[in-house]
Parts: sequence; structure tokens; C-alpha cells
Amino acid sequence: MIMVQKEQFIKDLEKLRQNAPLVHNITNYVVMNTSANSLLSIGASPVMAHAIEEMREMVSIASALMINIGTLSNKWVEAMFLAGNEAKAKGIPVILDPVGAGATSYRTDTAKKLIEDVQPDIIRGNASEIMALAKAGIQTKGVDSTAESDSALDIAKEMAKKTGAVISISGKTDYITDGETVHSVEKGHPLMGKITGTGCAASSISGAFASINNNYLEAATEAMIAMGIAGEMAGEQADAPGTFQVKFLDSLYKMDEKEIGKRL
Amino acid sequence: MIMVQKEQFIKDLEKLRQNAPLVHNITNYVVMNTSANSLLSIGASPVMAHAIEEMREMVSIASALMINIGTLSNKWVEAMFLAGNEAKAKGIPVILDPVGAGATSYRTDTAKKLIEDVQPDIIRGNASEIMALAKAGIQTKGVDSTAESDSALDIAKEMAKKTGAVISISGKTDYITDGETVHSVEKGHPLMGKITGTGCAASSISGAFASINNNYLEAATEAMIAMGIAGEMAGEQADAPGTFQVKFLDSLYKMDEKEIGKRL
Amino acid sequence: MIMVQKEQFIKDLEKLRQNAPLVHNITNYVVMNTSANSLLSIGASPVMAHAIEEMREMVSIASALMINIGTLSNKWVEAMFLAGNEAKAKGIPVILDPVGAGATSYRTDTAKKLIEDVQPDIIRGNASEIMALAKAGIQTKGVDSTAESDSALDIAKEMAKKTGAVISISGKTDYITDGETVHSVEKGHPLMGKITGTGCAASSISGAFASINNNYLEAATEAMIAMGIAGEMAGEQADAPGTFQVKFLDSLYKMDEKEIGKRL
Repeated sequence: MIMVQKEQFIKDLEKLRQNAPLVHNITNYVVMNTSANSLLSIGASPVMAHAIEEMREMVSIASALMINIGTLSNKWVEAMFLAGNEAKAKGIPVILDPVGAGATSYRTDTAKKLIEDVQPDIIRGNASEIMALAKAGIQTKGVDSTAESDSALDIAKEMAKKTGAVISISGKTDYITDGETVHSVEKGHPLMGKITGTGCAASSISGAFASINNNYLEAATEAMIAMGIAGEMAGEQADAPGTFQVKFLDSLYKMDEKEIGKRL
Repeated sequence: MIMVQKEQFIKDLEKLRQNAPLVHNITNYVVMNTSANSLLSIGASPVMAHAIEEMREMVSIASALMINIGTLSNKWVEAMFLAGNEAKAKGIPVILDPVGAGATSYRTDTAKKLIEDVQPDIIRGNASEIMALAKAGIQTKGVDSTAESDSALDIAKEMAKKTGAVISISGKTDYITDGETVHSVEKGHPLMGKITGTGCAASSISGAFASINNNYLEAATEAMIAMGIAGEMAGEQADAPGTFQVKFLDSLYKMDEKEIGKRL
Repeated sequence: MIMVQKEQFIKDLEKLRQNAPLVHNITNYVVMNTSANSLLSIGASPVMAHAIEEMREMVSIASALMINIGTLSNKWVEAMFLAGNEAKAKGIPVILDPVGAGATSYRTDTAKKLIEDVQPDIIRGNASEIMALAKAGIQTKGVDSTAESDSALDIAKEMAKKTGAVISISGKTDYITDGETVHSVEKGHPLMGKITGTGCAASSISGAFASINNNYLEAATEAMIAMGIAGEMAGEQADAPGTFQVKFLDSLYKMDEKEIGKRL
């Protein structure tokens, strides 16, 4: 069930395009280009920066911070904490994308510490990443390693309550929750899983929406709606990943009241 | 006013394609792929390398060096100085792209020091980057933070005189000046601003032209003409950023006497 | 002469798509996105990771390791050795792509040490890279710097015998040898040389095939067949590099019995 109404989504997307918020990304090497282009296509303004020397100043001009641990290393992790704490002190939204949490303890531990120390406003990952964080003690409930998305949702609700963050789980159905309310978005296209960086783009775009809508549950939902609609539009024009990626960027840019009206 | 004649541009582009000059890029993570593909598409040969251990040797086989501070950090900055000084000693053209100068003092200072120490032959940036450098004391005239492109041009002329570099300002109208003569290029397409890396590609391609035309004022102008024509060609085939990017690379590759003739 | 039969290639590609092997890439910044998307398009699962802190764990969940020295630096080289040795100890295939060997001694030496210490199962490079390694003492025969592909093949055979690795030389004709048998693949398209990262993708895809066919001579050949067929398919739909790259990814994804049957 999508709790964000069509009219509000259209209005907020319009606001995003008018404000062109600067989203500061500390993200992985693989997707930097795609994330920057996704933000540009939807109407936001991206900056990628990771040097400790410029973290404070860069955060000070940004409207949102997105931290993604996809290709982390020590220097970068240091910058993530610095930027994250600065962003919280400044009061701009912080989005965490715990890429690969669960795959290695370095990732799980880094994500866990970022959640505890920085207290991100939105945590966006896939079901297995969210469950790995839960297993690592972000919340106390036991987790089956082969859990269904329903149990991921229960875990996400508890994690939201415990951390104060909105949890956004992407998948065939996206679930977004603040621990009480649950929004679900069932849009998108299977080819989104055949290109790298769609999840990362969703996190960056969550930052863009959170910068113009301080109800982060709504903002995180709006980001998944935007991703889902662009995925649907692209899927109607592509039957393979290369073309799909091109049309996906086109669709973020061309998404308008008419396209949204057809799909929401 | 474009001071480079059509015939010369065609001749130099042909020479570039025959020579396939090796352009060494020390550039940011976001655009590495796009810059490499832009150089390949126009007919040059890219190399990306940043390890201090191989800077001297890599510069020794290159025909131009392009330094871009888009995602700088200390180790990389060290490599930029090493490569820059080696390139100047060897006599190959050095292009500086001061990405984000003005956004943080780390960037502004690094760009300033590179200009003073390495003395690049061409500095290519947007108006606000060039003005930030001027404000930082690269030249003495005061700068309004909300200056028009005309005042950016005046500043660029003074900066060119003071630094000895050709200053290339990209924008709706590109201005290229050595402090005396000013070339302007009014080509391109608005979608160039909706994909990441067009400015960075312009800097890399400036390096390619500078390696085959040692009149750097002309070379920097030729690069902006090539970018502008490719942008126009792509804009005729695309109405959104994803497709535009693909067609832009295609156009760098397909640009020929006929296409140039139609547009110059 | 292609020694891998059409039926086997179809069967192994099918197996690859069913298994979706996780290929761990320690690779260069320029191609990370393209390599990840190439692996996804053909049906494998990519992970990019380079932090020493997570090398052992990441290797432990991977089905193949691909090491590419395209934008190397010291920390990364350390991770390459760590991951390489772990992968060998675990018994998963290790592919080395010695990008730019011969261009700088840092690259040549690193590649040489990786070969001696890690003992990769497949070494995939272009003729000049393979010859640079030979010159550096990977094997003893003298090398002309302007050698033909025939002499590259002789060198590759000796290198294979000396190192125990399958040597895969890409070019207009690809040669793959274990020192005794030589497979050749004459497929592909000239535009493959006008986009960055096709060689790197070939190495990653070699890892994917090696994870499902432990005859590494066959696996390395199958990778070049897949690249060559995708190149042919893309070349029929594109006349310039931007479009070619998009169609190349599409073709890795869409390659099926019918397309393979037409071309093998």
C-alpha cells in the first residue's frame, strides 16, 4: 500500500526539480557515475567527495548526505563518520546504504557503528543487508539466514524503533517503515536487478527527497516510487540491461504528471 | 567569435585521429569511464594512472597530461604535483580542471598551488570555478560571488596574463583566452548539463588537441568546438540524458567534414 | 581454430546463468561499472572489494577471483596478494589481467610478482602486455618490441609452460594456450577497441566461466567466444562506440542458442 498520495508525489518531485538540492555522496567506485547521473536526471545536484580535509565544508553546503559502504576502506570510513556527524549536527538528512552488510564482518561492523554513532535518518538496503544488521545486534530479535521478506519487514520495524531511522527495504515489493507505519511500493522491473547501481541510486534519490520533505517516511517512499516508475517506463522500452540503463536515466528525467498518473 | 577556422579544425581533428595521442589523466572516480570513452571516441588514447611509483614513467610516454581535482585526496594530490612537474620538464602540455574550486578550501588551495607550482598550460573550468580561483588570489581583482559571465571573462583575461595559462571557461557560451585574444564558442546543448562529466571530458579533449597543436589558445578552442558540435549532434537525436550520453560518444566518433561543415 | 564445441559452450553458458557465480574483482576504477554490468548481463554476480580488512572473507564466498592492475597503488597491490593467495588456498580460479604491463616498471614488476607469488590460473592480456611480461623474465626467450602476434603466441606458449597458467591473448584473433594446445577465436568487432574496458570485461568473464568449468583452457576460450559473439551482435546494431557499448551489454544478456548457432 502506497501511503504517499499521487498529488503529493507530483508536488514534491516538482519541488525537488525546482530546488535542485545538492546531495553529497560518499559512495562506492562502481556506481559513482550512475548515481551522479541518476541525481542529475531526476533534477537534483550531485557531489562526490571523500577527503577528510574537505568533509566539513562539503557537508556545510549540502542539503543531504548519502553514505554507501560498497567499496569501503579505512580512510573512507573515517570520512563517513566525520561527514555523518557533521550532517547530523547541521540538521540535514543522512541516508545510509549498508551495501554488502553480512558479506564480510568489516562491512557489517562498519554499518553497525555508523548506525550507532551517526544515527542516520534513513537506512536503505535489500532484505539480506537489513537482516544482517539485525543479526549483528542492531536489534535483538533472532534472524533466520533464509528469512522471507515478511520476516525482513518485522525485523525492519523493530530496527526502526530501536534506531529511530526509517528503514527502506528494496525488493520486488519495497517496504518502508518507521516502526509503526509501513508503506509498500510494488513497482519497478526485473531488469533493475540486472544492472549495477539501482539500489545505490535509490539511496541517493532518497537523500534528494529527504532534503525537500522532512517527513522521512514519506521521503523514503517517494524515492522508491520514483525509482519504480522510472523502472516501469524503462522496462517498456528495453528488453536487455544495456538499453534498460539508458532508458532508466531518460525516464527519471521525463517522468511527468502524465506518466505518474498512469502508474500511481 | 570562433577564431579557429573550419579548415584548421578539420585538419587538426584529422591529425588527432591519425596520431591517437596518449593523454594521461589523473582524474576523479566519477568520470574516469566517461573521459576514457570520450578520448577513445574522438580518436585519442587514454591512460588513467595515479600511483606515485609510476608517475614519471607514465608521463614519459604521454603526449599530454590532464589533472582534474574532482575527487581529490592527499596521495592523489601528491601524484598531481609529481606528474605535473615532470610533464612541464618534458615539455608536454598540462591541462588543469579545478573541479569544485570554491566549494571547499581544500579544493581551492590545491588548485591554486597546482597553478603556482606546476604552471599548467590550459586551465579549463566553469565560471564559478575560475572566479573562485581569482578570489583565492590567483589574481588580484575583487570578485562578486554572483558575477555574470562577462565579469568572469574579465577575470579570466587577467588570470591568463598573471599565470601564463590559457583560460577556458565553459558555459552556454564558452570563452577561451590567453589574456589578449578572446575566442568564444556558442555551441552545445542544454542536456550537456544534465549528465556528469562533460566538463571533465572537455578538459581531457583539450589535452588531446594541445598535443597536436602547440598554439594552446587554438587547441583549447578546438576542444570546445569538438564538444559543442558533438553536443549539437547528440541533441538532435536525444530528448533525455541517458540517450544523450550515448549519442554524445557516438557523435565524437562520427563527427566528420560534413557534420562540421553544417555547424561551423 | 576453436576447440570448444558449440554444444559445450551452450551448455556451459547455461550452467553459468543457472549458478550465477560470484566473481570477486579487484580491478581498476575506470572499468568497475562496465565489468560489473558485463558480469550481470551474462548472468554472473559481481562483487568489487579491495579493503585488506575484508579480503579473506570476501574470497571465501566467491567462486572466482579476478585481479586487474589497471589503476594500481600500494594498498591495492597488498590486497591483490592477500586475495590471490587466499583464493589459491581455497582452490577457486584466479585470473590476472596485467593492464599496462610494459608501460611502467611498477606495473610490470607488480604483474611479475603476482604471477610468481600467486600463480594465477589464467593470465589474460593483449599481445604487448604478454610480451612485456616475457621480457621481464617471466620466461627467458628474448622478445622483439615490435613483435607480430605469431611471436606473441610462441611467447605465450612458453609462458604457459613456465608458469602453469593458461595464457589468453586478446586481439583481432584471440589465442588461448596452456603451452601445448592452442585455441584461437576470430570473432568480435573493431568497435570493441573504441570503448574502454572490453579487455577487462573479458578477464572478469573468464573468471565466471572458470568457476563452472575447471578445464581452464576451455573456460578461457569460452570467455573469448562469449565476448566475440556479443561483439558481433552489437556490431550489427551500432556504428559508433556509445551505442556499441549499450548493445554489447544487451548482447551478453540476449545471447542464446539461436544467436550462438548462427555464429559458431
